[in-house]
Amino acid sequence: MTARAREALARAEVIVGYRTYIDLVATLIAGREVVVNGMTGEVDRCREAVERAAAGARVAVISSGDPGVYGMAGLVLEILAAHPRGREIPVTIIPGVTAATAAAAALGAPLMHDFAVISLSDRLTPWEVISRRLEMAAAADFVLVLYNPRSHGRPDHLGRAREIILKYRQPSTPVGVVRNAGRKGEVAWLRDLDTLLELPVDMVSTVIIGNSQTRVLDGRMVTPRGYRL
Amino acid sequence: MTARAREALARAEVIVGYRTYIDLVATLIAGREVVVNGMTGEVDRCREAVERAAAGARVAVISSGDPGVYGMAGLVLEILAAHPRGREIPVTIIPGVTAATAAAAALGAPLMHDFAVISLSDRLTPWEVISRRLEMAAAADFVLVLYNPRSHGRPDHLGRAREIILKYRQPSTPVGVVRNAGRKGEVAWLRDLDTLLELPVDMVSTVIIGNSQTRVLDGRMVTPRGYRL
Repeated sequence: MTARAREALARAEVIVGYRTYIDLVATLIAGREVVVNGMTGEVDRCREAVERAAAGARVAVISSGDPGVYGMAGLVLEILAAHPRGREIPVTIIPGVTAATAAAAALGAPLMHDFAVISLSDRLTPWEVISRRLEMAAAADFVLVLYNPRSHGRPDHLGRAREIILKYRQPSTPVGVVRNAGRKGEVAWLRDLDTLLELPVDMVSTVIIGNSQTRVLDGRMVTPRGYRL
Repeated sequence: MTARAREALARAEVIVGYRTYIDLVATLIAGREVVVNGMTGEVDRCREAVERAAAGARVAVISSGDPGVYGMAGLVLEILAAHPRGREIPVTIIPGVTAATAAAAALGAPLMHDFAVISLSDRLTPWEVISRRLEMAAAADFVLVLYNPRSHGRPDHLGRAREIILKYRQPSTPVGVVRNAGRKGEVAWLRDLDTLLELPVDMVSTVIIGNSQTRVLDGRMVTPRGYRL
């Protein structure tokens, strides 16, 4: 967590967030009013935050990682823009360490070159859009970072993504999986595209698939930038 | 800066980095030995860091933003892997807030959906690779984040990138430019693809180009995730 995020939490009067994320910062927000709800209640949660702010409270909406990467920042701004008093409410987005770079650090240095970040969740995005992005990013040799790689409702998305990527990458391409990147209980695995599906990938995992140059050096995943050594 | 990065700097005996980055943390490293050199001395700098660590010192190599995104993490691991005593030297990569998400926060919430990060520097990558990635990422409707968008040695890369992107995006597509994202002196501009080249983009700027859904809401750049409001 950055110093700026910590200061914002310290100053907030009302904390709004998904239960899991509230629990992560429990010691930092002791004594403050907390508004929690479930994972799929994002719109209600952000509306509540905006209403509280409109009523004069200093409100912090928390996301894990970076609130600007598949987080709550956009929804808060959309709701503010539609609110009759939205322009009067000051808002600050505080960036954080997103799962892509937290997972990369746990694995080595796979993001030394151009990369594409893709969520495999089709809750809000048609699978056709997701699969086209996988296809184009794989073809253009981007390192790929997959968010929301698997859930109970869509256990086969990661397998379908792997099939698409295998059209353009060798089965021996290094693949890293990190559960709870940057959080307590972080675990990292390093395999390859061929054996990816043997790993226990779940909703709190981030998957990083190397480009054509990515190698494993002393147990670490490294995509060379291209310096001559 | 994260608490973890601050703690690592506090514990380090030798600090290695490019002059501009050393200056950013001057007050945090007072009294410690500092090894600095110029922007293009990356290999020498990392070799020196590895030699100092091999000799027993606790060394911190600093990058701005996240060391794992076009930073020094990969080079350090490559040099370690080639060093006769490299396996004996423990190394930790500490992730940070990369320019993509720091710039996004300054502009609003442009990275709510899938995005591609591309460096326009052809110092280590052929322009053909860069232009193909721009082409594919634009075609697949990724939000685009451009690092190293312009320098004295290649003043026209941003213009060439814009031409490629305009094959797939409307001239009215929102574009944000942030100088010194997340640092002192941060400035953000919001325009569109049509007028992008009127902005004073330089080497310390990050450029974010919206996807087909990105809008400007009350002066902020927002890519909707797709929630129904």
